[in-house]
Amino acid sequence: MERIIATYYIETPYALEKAAQVLAGEQSSGTFVAVPGETEELKERFAARVESIEHLETVDTAAIPGAESKTGNYHRAIIKVSWSIENFGYNLPVLVSTLQGNLYEITQFTGLKLMDIDLPESFSKHYAGAKFGIDGCRQLTNIYNRPLIGTIIKPSIGLSIQQTADIVKTLAEAGIDFIKDDELLSSSANSNFNDRVEAVMKVINTHADKTGKKVMFAFNISGEVDEMMQRYETIVNAGGTSAMVSINSVGLSATKKICDQGQLAIHAHRNGWGMMTRHPLLGIDFNAYQKLWRLVGVDQLHVNGIQNKFWESDDSVVASIESLKKPFYHHKNILPVVSSGQWGGQAFETYRRTNTVDLLYMAGGGIMAHPMGAGAGVVALQQAWKAAVDGLSLEEAAKLYPEFAKSVEKFGTK
Amino acid sequence: MERIIATYYIETPYALEKAAQVLAGEQSSGTFVAVPGETEELKERFAARVESIEHLETVDTAAIPGAESKTGNYHRAIIKVSWSIENFGYNLPVLVSTLQGNLYEITQFTGLKLMDIDLPESFSKHYAGAKFGIDGCRQLTNIYNRPLIGTIIKPSIGLSIQQTADIVKTLAEAGIDFIKDDELLSSSANSNFNDRVEAVMKVINTHADKTGKKVMFAFNISGEVDEMMQRYETIVNAGGTSAMVSINSVGLSATKKICDQGQLAIHAHRNGWGMMTRHPLLGIDFNAYQKLWRLVGVDQLHVNGIQNKFWESDDSVVASIESLKKPFYHHKNILPVVSSGQWGGQAFETYRRTNTVDLLYMAGGGIMAHPMGAGAGVVALQQAWKAAVDGLSLEEAAKLYPEFAKSVEKFGTK
Repeated sequence: MERIIATYYIETPYALEKAAQVLAGEQSSGTFVAVPGETEELKERFAARVESIEHLETVDTAAIPGAESKTGNYHRAIIKVSWSIENFGYNLPVLVSTLQGNLYEITQFTGLKLMDIDLPESFSKHYAGAKFGIDGCRQLTNIYNRPLIGTIIKPSIGLSIQQTADIVKTLAEAGIDFIKDDELLSSSANSNFNDRVEAVMKVINTHADKTGKKVMFAFNISGEVDEMMQRYETIVNAGGTSAMVSINSVGLSATKKICDQGQLAIHAHRNGWGMMTRHPLLGIDFNAYQKLWRLVGVDQLHVNGIQNKFWESDDSVVASIESLKKPFYHHKNILPVVSSGQWGGQAFETYRRTNTVDLLYMAGGGIMAHPMGAGAGVVALQQAWKAAVDGLSLEEAAKLYPEFAKSVEKFGTK
Repeated sequence: MERIIATYYIETPYALEKAAQVLAGEQSSGTFVAVPGETEELKERFAARVESIEHLETVDTAAIPGAESKTGNYHRAIIKVSWSIENFGYNLPVLVSTLQGNLYEITQFTGLKLMDIDLPESFSKHYAGAKFGIDGCRQLTNIYNRPLIGTIIKPSIGLSIQQTADIVKTLAEAGIDFIKDDELLSSSANSNFNDRVEAVMKVINTHADKTGKKVMFAFNISGEVDEMMQRYETIVNAGGTSAMVSINSVGLSATKKICDQGQLAIHAHRNGWGMMTRHPLLGIDFNAYQKLWRLVGVDQLHVNGIQNKFWESDDSVVASIESLKKPFYHHKNILPVVSSGQWGGQAFETYRRTNTVDLLYMAGGGIMAHPMGAGAGVVALQQAWKAAVDGLSLEEAAKLYPEFAKSVEKFGTK
């Protein structure tokens, strides 16, 4: 029978074998005393199994509150635990409740992070994965052999619909490939969702009729299920190609329903993610997280960016992009969304470390606040990526390309 | 214009005023340079506002990774930030993305926990809250003036449908008020959901016809949206009165849709919660969390229990129960679900500290593993609660009640 294997980074004051057994017990037959009906045969079939324990180090301070160590020692290890597919069937929320769930409550652990999930082959028959993915997003935007260049409508919140449409017009004429709502905006007092879609798509469709280039706009449909379905339809009817979902806020089940519609590329915004991963010994690692969302079927997923304005290290960002580059069954690979404080200068390091142009490369202020205007901002980003792929340094690129040189002047010292 | 006020517990190496402004800026108009269209009028209307800063202490070690302090000092404070209701309308996922979201990514914070949310009166017009709540659950079970006594089918996973139905029969005859699936089980290889509902409800309905007492069974419907809707209908058609949702795994939007159906009492299991709250300076406090789920409309919400087997302190459990006791608009109050290692002995301390019997008091092994059988296990719990309300001590109760005395013998030394 196929098994699902989860890899955890744990810390415990107890013997590692004992702690691992507590974890496996809690997540398959856990209660504090033996009960009738808990036969050996049943345990063999449905019990979680500790597959391996690799001791890493022993420290003298607990990472998070939990059981106190009598010896003052806390042991860190990588452990693998497996469950039979018979326990869940194909049910992602129940999978999450089993692989995460009450594990974070167990006092025997003073640290627990889900690092990876190995899912059996049969999952690929039940989950089709991304409908569009990298290839589909390239077809929808007609951009090949370089990153899609994108931006976020800023200020995040407060612009009128006319102001938004004007900015979209500026950006479309500037040659942008992708635009998105900020996650703070769905439908506000002065920017009703339906009216915004109508106004924005009118600009985009007019521009596409004239030039053949259709900008992908990810409207933020995050909301209740029926509302999201209506807004999804509104986008489809207006000729749009994408919708954005704040996946952590909306949740797994409703996001899956949206992805299942299959008519729009789904831009998955991971806001809230920091809570789940920022502590090194609590929560879930991106490597496990991205697999869940690839099963759900999103087409684009945020990974932060090199030299970002947030807490995340470059190594962590690169690891996230590498996770998304890995094949996942026969599914379409999905587009890593590189964002946060990006202006083009990071293209060199991003390309050097990831060696891919299959990215949605987002710049906010880096485009709109370019000294020569938004058009030059978009051009500067394209130049930066061409230079990076051509093996030039930032300095060489700045000598060759005037628009990019202005970006370096304005943003390069931050 | 009405405003939403969020209270955060923060830690930062920066001046508190500066850090608070970063937070407010990121969650209303954040980008790293000024952009056209960001007028003063617009800022005034839509910008987040820092309402207050209360410095608590300064420490010399960062709670979680973030910006390094040049002075070696990290300042902890309670800050309040407000947003105009105009920013969101009534959209819970967007509210969550604004009040939490990217805040956890901000490097200027070496700790950030959402402690409370003050929501304006108009929310109560848009969110009806629990359809059943405490009063409705009491009516459905016909139990008044004492906690509802509940249990979880154990082992969590692996029992056949016939075994499950047999246990339900035993428990019903034992006088139990409430039973639930474990969160690890929805539909497994040997316990198909629909068949389990049919078999279990046959037992419950037969028992109700005979005795007039209908046991509330919370079947775990957690899954994809359409699947949950079908399973919900299956329960309704079989005469069931409750469904369970693993709210963190399923997510806010899909849980709302389930609650909106209004025909079943929704048992909200908060597995996964530890990840969001276990670290003292990361995530969200129960006081804020429970408000979101009361808006969603769940009827019962887990709070862990006194002297539980998990990491949570008694003080934290009591604070959670007190949060749920507070009125919330004109909404029905919801039932705190007390569980984890409970066997009756904790009734005394639970009542002493919370002074309420409006609880769903769950015991697993405490019932099924009672030396005199499950019936005595249920009776022992009722005795413990009667004694606690009567002002007896555990020792006095054990002298008075033989079934409870056996519980003390078996579980009292753990």
